[in-house]
Amino acid sequence: MSTYVMIHGAWHSGAELEPVAALVRASGHSVFTPTMTGNRPGDPKTTGLEDAIQSILDFISESNLDDIVLLGHSYGGIVITGVADRMASRIRRLVYLSAFVANNGESLSDLVPSHYPGLLTSLGDGSVVLPFPIWRDAYINDADLETARRAYDRLNPHPLKTFTDKLVVRTNPAEMAMPKSFINCTEDTALPHSFPLHPRLSEKLGLYRLVQTPGSHELCFSNPARLAQAVIEAGRD
Amino acid sequence: MSTYVMIHGAWHSGAELEPVAALVRASGHSVFTPTMTGNRPGDPKTTGLEDAIQSILDFISESNLDDIVLLGHSYGGIVITGVADRMASRIRRLVYLSAFVANNGESLSDLVPSHYPGLLTSLGDGSVVLPFPIWRDAYINDADLETARRAYDRLNPHPLKTFTDKLVVRTNPAEMAMPKSFINCTEDTALPHSFPLHPRLSEKLGLYRLVQTPGSHELCFSNPARLAQAVIEAGRD
Amino acid sequence: MSTYVMIHGAWHSGAELEPVAALVRASGHSVFTPTMTGNRPGDPKTTGLEDAIQSILDFISESNLDDIVLLGHSYGGIVITGVADRMASRIRRLVYLSAFVANNGESLSDLVPSHYPGLLTSLGDGSVVLPFPIWRDAYINDADLETARRAYDRLNPHPLKTFTDKLVVRTNPAEMAMPKSFINCTEDTALPHSFPLHPRLSEKLGLYRLVQTPGSHELCFSNPARLAQAVIEAGRD
Repeated sequence: MSTYVMIHGAWHSGAELEPVAALVRASGHSVFTPTMTGNRPGDPKTTGLEDAIQSILDFISESNLDDIVLLGHSYGGIVITGVADRMASRIRRLVYLSAFVANNGESLSDLVPSHYPGLLTSLGDGSVVLPFPIWRDAYINDADLETARRAYDRLNPHPLKTFTDKLVVRTNPAEMAMPKSFINCTEDTALPHSFPLHPRLSEKLGLYRLVQTPGSHELCFSNPARLAQAVIEAGRD
Repeated sequence: MSTYVMIHGAWHSGAELEPVAALVRASGHSVFTPTMTGNRPGDPKTTGLEDAIQSILDFISESNLDDIVLLGHSYGGIVITGVADRMASRIRRLVYLSAFVANNGESLSDLVPSHYPGLLTSLGDGSVVLPFPIWRDAYINDADLETARRAYDRLNPHPLKTFTDKLVVRTNPAEMAMPKSFINCTEDTALPHSFPLHPRLSEKLGLYRLVQTPGSHELCFSNPARLAQAVIEAGRD
Repeated sequence: MSTYVMIHGAWHSGAELEPVAALVRASGHSVFTPTMTGNRPGDPKTTGLEDAIQSILDFISESNLDDIVLLGHSYGGIVITGVADRMASRIRRLVYLSAFVANNGESLSDLVPSHYPGLLTSLGDGSVVLPFPIWRDAYINDADLETARRAYDRLNPHPLKTFTDKLVVRTNPAEMAMPKSFINCTEDTALPHSFPLHPRLSEKLGLYRLVQTPGSHELCFSNPARLAQAVIEAGRD
């Protein structure tokens, strides 16, 4: 049985991955869903990417976890690359879930279309939020309106600096020794379908295991059971 | 509950969408499947795109429909863009089903590979038909031969002028205020798979909701139940 | 009912297609799974592409088969193109299963990324093998580790010359008179997902029937039942 550490995406916290985690646990695995600095209640919204990465390094150290399947959702993909670079010996496999794959010197903002930052609403404290119409039709297109609204209400304003800070790693993902997986949700339109996460960014992993599942970018809300199955297939051996 | 108006594609009439409409109605919605000018029995085959659009504008006016989910299949996608431009206040959402998305000044012929017009057989009265081998393997690849033949026998010769006339709209789809959906059938090979309807044309919608379903361009014949489910997911809220 | 001749891929023999063949037979068809020269026990590993093609021409002649649905998996796609060129009158339909589509003068090596040959391990007798990590994550990504290992143990070293020999045909697939199908396994990452078999190579077939199924390049091991269904849909009429 495996030890999963699942890292949430922007605007999320670990709690949003709990329904998935519960189902993965039901198959006998240990699963942890820490919330990164910047997304905890009361966190300053000036948090940068290094702070977020450090908070996961600290969590793993303090929890004495080893032989980890480290999963990152969306923005969390950049964070797990940073964690893997500094804590390689504790990680058995990296799993990118509808995730950004950054090399050294790249920020999340470098990997999205140039008009994307303009779609976000700034709250003036360093954080940005996603307007509901974009959330509903481009992020959680596979859910009904009630699920979309309930999920939206759980999001927290996200520190913009974590999007614009450039990742600093000694080794790019393709050259990292541990194996990697990428879970592609086939109706994920968080990025334009012709400028997608997969295969545009997944291929930066070099050799990796592709797992696909029907669903949107926010399958953690719309179908936790299907996502749990994909996580298990991505993380086994 | 919603009011759907479903606009058929080239060579089809509204009757071919009735099995899908019946299943959408079974979920409590009102569904209308008018046949456009050019595809009714006895229509002159010199009909142009404006005539086709006008026939739907007339249908909506005469039926006193409002708050409409307006769906267009294939060629019907060009027609609903024209209808939406002139009757925006009556439309709640546009749904493009394996459909062409045209901007002002574009014709259907502008959006297909240059060798495509040569694949069609002219009947000499202004209409064209699709040879059966193309229908069977590229349009309805997911059905058995008997279904493919039975469906083919129901098609009517299509007025070529509706393919070559350029759409005239004041507003392109991406700038229209109402929300939009695109249903992509993942085995749709009516256009070459590397020059596809989706995402090549769907992205002209700007922000839109993607719904995908297994099936060919002619899912209305091969699996009306699966298509009805996709229509409901595309049209809800 | 149809007569299927199913041609295996590199490193495989006909025996690996038997679980699929058995399920296709259960629907009433005749199915043959010959092993090509170069992959039989004791074959010299200096076998070239012509020898492999000739061994299938001989098999069909000696077995007196006619009206054949001729299927080729992966490398086998190049072989069936060669067979079809010389024995067109005996073939009803060509089915390419996660397969290479070569024109006259092209070798398999011409159709893969330039770094691919370097991924293989040479055994010094003219044959090459696929390292297990590549097999596990890029070829049979949809199976569990035990299935991946058991399948790997059945592979045989493959004669490299069959990859580098150029196909010699008078007619390219798109111009061949018999209809064609392509089965795309949607998680097939044997080639990079942005440099794929489908649609990059499938479109060289011209008009063809696309059948898609979830699964990896090695669906014959991971889900023979699903593959058998796809084979039947690809080969019917």
